[in-house]
Amino acid sequence: MTVPNILLVGTGGVGTIVALGLHYNKKASISVVVRSDYEKVKETGWTIHSVDYGNINGWKPDYIYPTVEEAAKNAIYDYVIITTKNLPDVIKPEKVVAPAITEKVTTIVLIQNGFDLGRSFIAKYPENICLSGVSHIGSHNNNGTITQTQKDKCLISYFKNPNLEIPSQELKAKEFIDLYSNDKNDVTYFDDVKWYRYRKLVYNATLNTVCALTGVDTGRLQLAGTLNTVSIPAMKEVISIAKADGVELPKDVINTVVHSDDGDWFKPSMLVDVEKGNPIELEVILGNLLVVAKELKVETPILSILYELLKAKQFKLKEDRGIITVPKERPISDQIYN
Amino acid sequence: MTVPNILLVGTGGVGTIVALGLHYNKKASISVVVRSDYEKVKETGWTIHSVDYGNINGWKPDYIYPTVEEAAKNAIYDYVIITTKNLPDVIKPEKVVAPAITEKVTTIVLIQNGFDLGRSFIAKYPENICLSGVSHIGSHNNNGTITQTQKDKCLISYFKNPNLEIPSQELKAKEFIDLYSNDKNDVTYFDDVKWYRYRKLVYNATLNTVCALTGVDTGRLQLAGTLNTVSIPAMKEVISIAKADGVELPKDVINTVVHSDDGDWFKPSMLVDVEKGNPIELEVILGNLLVVAKELKVETPILSILYELLKAKQFKLKEDRGIITVPKERPISDQIYN
Repeated sequence: MTVPNILLVGTGGVGTIVALGLHYNKKASISVVVRSDYEKVKETGWTIHSVDYGNINGWKPDYIYPTVEEAAKNAIYDYVIITTKNLPDVIKPEKVVAPAITEKVTTIVLIQNGFDLGRSFIAKYPENICLSGVSHIGSHNNNGTITQTQKDKCLISYFKNPNLEIPSQELKAKEFIDLYSNDKNDVTYFDDVKWYRYRKLVYNATLNTVCALTGVDTGRLQLAGTLNTVSIPAMKEVISIAKADGVELPKDVINTVVHSDDGDWFKPSMLVDVEKGNPIELEVILGNLLVVAKELKVETPILSILYELLKAKQFKLKEDRGIITVPKERPISDQIYN
Repeated sequence: MTVPNILLVGTGGVGTIVALGLHYNKKASISVVVRSDYEKVKETGWTIHSVDYGNINGWKPDYIYPTVEEAAKNAIYDYVIITTKNLPDVIKPEKVVAPAITEKVTTIVLIQNGFDLGRSFIAKYPENICLSGVSHIGSHNNNGTITQTQKDKCLISYFKNPNLEIPSQELKAKEFIDLYSNDKNDVTYFDDVKWYRYRKLVYNATLNTVCALTGVDTGRLQLAGTLNTVSIPAMKEVISIAKADGVELPKDVINTVVHSDDGDWFKPSMLVDVEKGNPIELEVILGNLLVVAKELKVETPILSILYELLKAKQFKLKEDRGIITVPKERPISDQIYN
C-alpha cells in the first residue's frame, strides 16, 4: 500500500512541529521545503525541545528540499501544507506552492493566521480542496532549534469551495486529521471555519492592529483609553460584518476578548512583528476582511482607517527589509490635490 | 525712563534667539529662566552661531534665573514670553509661568506651536492680554550651543480676549513688535491669528499626526497611499471646522499643503519627536482643535481616531520618559465591556 505524499512549506516553530506530528504517525511520506537553513538541516536535522514529543536531536522527515521546485520534481503530492507567515503583499502563497500543486489532486492545507485565506487558492485551483488549520501551538525556531512550549492544538476544517461537493471537502478534512492527529497532539475537526475565523478577528483586527500602530501592549492600550475609543468600536464593526455574512458571534464576545489578556501586559503578534522589523500580516487580518465588508456593503469607518494607516507602517517595514526601495531624491509630483 | 521688564521661559533654539533679538534692541530688560543648563549658562553664557546675529561667544541677557519662582522674586514683568514646547498633558504652561504673572499687568506672549493656545491663559488670567507668536525660525540648542540656520521670522498677533477691548490688544501686540523687531530679524504684525493657526493645522493636524503614527515621512506617506486615504480627508475636516468657526481657507489649500514638501523626504516635527522619544504636542495640535469642533458640532471621524490612536502613542512616550508609570503586574479589571 502506498501512503499519501505530504509536502510542508514553512519550517518555522509551527510548521516543524506539524511535520514532526505527521511523521510520528507513520501514515504518510513527509517532505519539507527548507529555505534559509537548508544545508544545515539536510546535514544534521533539527534539534527539538517539545512539550509534546520531548527532546530530539537531529530529527529529519522523509525528504528535505531546498525549494518547492525541487520538491515538485520528485513526487505528486496528495497534500501541500503551508505554515509560512501569510504575506500576500510581499509574496502570494498560492504562487509559492504552485509547482507542487497538481490540479484536482492536491489538497491544500493552510495552517496560517488570517481571514478568508481560501479565496485566492480556490480562484487559482477551482477543483482542489483547500483545508483550514487554526493552530494554538506555542513554538519558536531559533537557528534550527525548535522550542515548543505549548501543546500542538489545531482545529481543522475546510474553506468552502463552491465548485465541489460539501461532503467530499468535509471527508478530506477528516482524512487529513487522521494523518495528523496522534496521542501527543490535539487535532480536532471544527465545523464552522468562517465562524471561527471571525471570532479570532474580533481580537486580531482590533487589538492586534491598534497595538501594532501605537506601539503599546493591550494593557497600556486600556490605560491610555484607546481600547474604549478605537478598539471596541472596531470590534463592533467586525461583529456587523460577521452578521451580514451570516455569522452570529456570541453576545458577550467583546467582553471575553477584552478580558482574554487580563493580568498580562500582552503584546499581540503584529506588535511583536513591528518591534522585530518584520512585515505584518495586514492583508490577511484586515485587508481580506475589508474586501468582504465591501462586498456585503457594511460600513467600516474605523477598520478602514486602521488599514490605511497600517499600510504606511507596512511600507516602512518592507523598505527597512529591502522588499521595496524608494529613489534617493523624492520625485516631484505634478498631481493636483483637492 | 524705565524700560519694560521681559521674562522669557524656554531657552531652546527658538527662545534663545528671541531673547537675543530683544536684548540686541536695548529697549527692554531681558530676563530668562534656564532650567537644565543653568549653572553652565550662568557661568559662561551661550555660544551662538546665528544667520541673523553672527557668531557670539558667551552671550548673556540681563538676568538669568534657575526657576520662574526665582525670577518672580526680583521683578514685576510687563511681558512673559513662553517659548517652551506646549505639552499641557505633561505640564500646563499657564501653571509654569504663574509665579511671574501679575494680574491685569503682565502681557503673556506664546511663541509656540498649536491651536487655540490662548484659551487656557485667558481662562486663568481674564484681564491679561495674551499675544500669539508664530515662528518660522530654524534654530537648535545643542548643550548650550545655539545654531540658527534660518532667519527669525515671526508673526505676532493676539489671542482675542473677550473681556478686553480689541484696540488695547492690538496696540499691545504692536508695542511688543516694537521691542522685538530689529534690523536682523523679520517680525511683523499679522491680523488674523485664528485664520493663520487654522491654516497651519491643515498640515499639522493631518500630515504631522499621521507621520508620527505610522513612522514614515510625508513622501513615503504619499507612496504608501495613506496621504490620499487618510490625510487628505482629514484636511477636509480641518477646513470644515475652520468654516464653522468663520474662517474661510483658500480653495487650493490642500494642494498647496501637499506640495509644500515637494522634492523632500520630509519628517514633520511630531515624527521627529517620536523618533527622539519625546512626548508629542498632541493636545495643542489635535486636542484643542477637537474641543472647538465639538463646540461647533462639526463631525470629525478621521481626526478623532487619529487623536485617540496618538493618545496611546503619547502614553508610551511619557512612560519611556518616566513621566507616567504603570505597575509591574497588570491590574485585572472587573469592568464589563460591551
